[in-house]
Amino acid sequence: MKDFSPTARTRIKRLPGRARYDRDTVYSILDAGFICHVGYVIDQHPYVTPTAYWREGDAVYWHGSSKSRMLVALEKSPRVCLTVMHLDALVVARSGFHKSINYRSVMIFGKPYKVTEPEEKLAKMEAFVERLYPGRWPELRPVNKQELKATTVLGMHIEEAVAKVRTGPPVDDDEDYALPIWAGLVPIRQVAGQPVDDGRLAQGAPGAPRVRL
Amino acid sequence: MKDFSPTARTRIKRLPGRARYDRDTVYSILDAGFICHVGYVIDQHPYVTPTAYWREGDAVYWHGSSKSRMLVALEKSPRVCLTVMHLDALVVARSGFHKSINYRSVMIFGKPYKVTEPEEKLAKMEAFVERLYPGRWPELRPVNKQELKATTVLGMHIEEAVAKVRTGPPVDDDEDYALPIWAGLVPIRQVAGQPVDDGRLAQGAPGAPRVRL
Repeated sequence: MKDFSPTARTRIKRLPGRARYDRDTVYSILDAGFICHVGYVIDQHPYVTPTAYWREGDAVYWHGSSKSRMLVALEKSPRVCLTVMHLDALVVARSGFHKSINYRSVMIFGKPYKVTEPEEKLAKMEAFVERLYPGRWPELRPVNKQELKATTVLGMHIEEAVAKVRTGPPVDDDEDYALPIWAGLVPIRQVAGQPVDDGRLAQGAPGAPRVRL
Repeated sequence: MKDFSPTARTRIKRLPGRARYDRDTVYSILDAGFICHVGYVIDQHPYVTPTAYWREGDAVYWHGSSKSRMLVALEKSPRVCLTVMHLDALVVARSGFHKSINYRSVMIFGKPYKVTEPEEKLAKMEAFVERLYPGRWPELRPVNKQELKATTVLGMHIEEAVAKVRTGPPVDDDEDYALPIWAGLVPIRQVAGQPVDDGRLAQGAPGAPRVRL
């Protein structure tokens, strides 16, 4: 499939060297996370709601209660911006001006649509569970009709996309490198801790599932 | 100072038990992070940009290059939504329907303004450095006039705010507790790794600064 092209909305003017429009980069940043921030407009006012998402092919999906105000608003939105950001490091420079962060982010634009066909909806819910907990779906109590009805799944074909990436050490002014000030990177990452059993675990229940952050 | 009141924009209708409007909760969630997602509108289209922020009193601040398209757009925006979210745990339930996440999030609304007075701007840059690196500002090469000019600092008085918090174990259907399926919490947190010295560190430079995530 073709890479994305810069559009009026996605062309990076400031520090264009950080911009990426290739599908590999955009998809790999999307696939490295599961929490996005969805931006939408109601009565000309911007709203940003964090939610879980997953990618399949050239679309992203997210879901929630059919009663969710966010999902109802999104379904009617002609345009949505979905942003994902991974913080990789604090970039510690020799001056306050040159401090920075290393990150990978993606901003995508599109128009959400509702996944209505029950079988497809169920398949999407499975894909989401499998994204976070590989192999878990068959072990769960199956989703029933009522639950399927109470869940809204939105999809959004990725129409426009831009990734931004900063890597590497601080970039200080030439004369500042001689100063006896510490500079470098402080790596940051998100980690999963020891699973905590639910207090009402049934006898014979297996251990915690594998989690893929 | 008074707590926030629910407004048309911040009243949580779905799962209102998760909503908090008190300043202590809103501020403590803001103070627990330093990356936000800023939502704004250009030509009726939503944009969401991740950026670093900090709070002072009843306002939040963020900054960047004076040439940043985001900052120029924000300065003109009659309304901005700034969202912060901390992921605390995966909530692993016995069914796909009841899976959830534990989180603390804040959505605030206001109108950004430019901090123009140079002394105030410098004080804001100091506050930001001290937020992330307590005690570091006096050790840095001072910010010069040129750099101050090249930096835009935006402030936003918090006019409307709502926090959302989910804590605790999964909530499964009564009959599902008997099933031999694992359920519980997988705690998630953001951690700082071992600092990596810049390759051009001067002789006599001290160790890495303390970081407050």
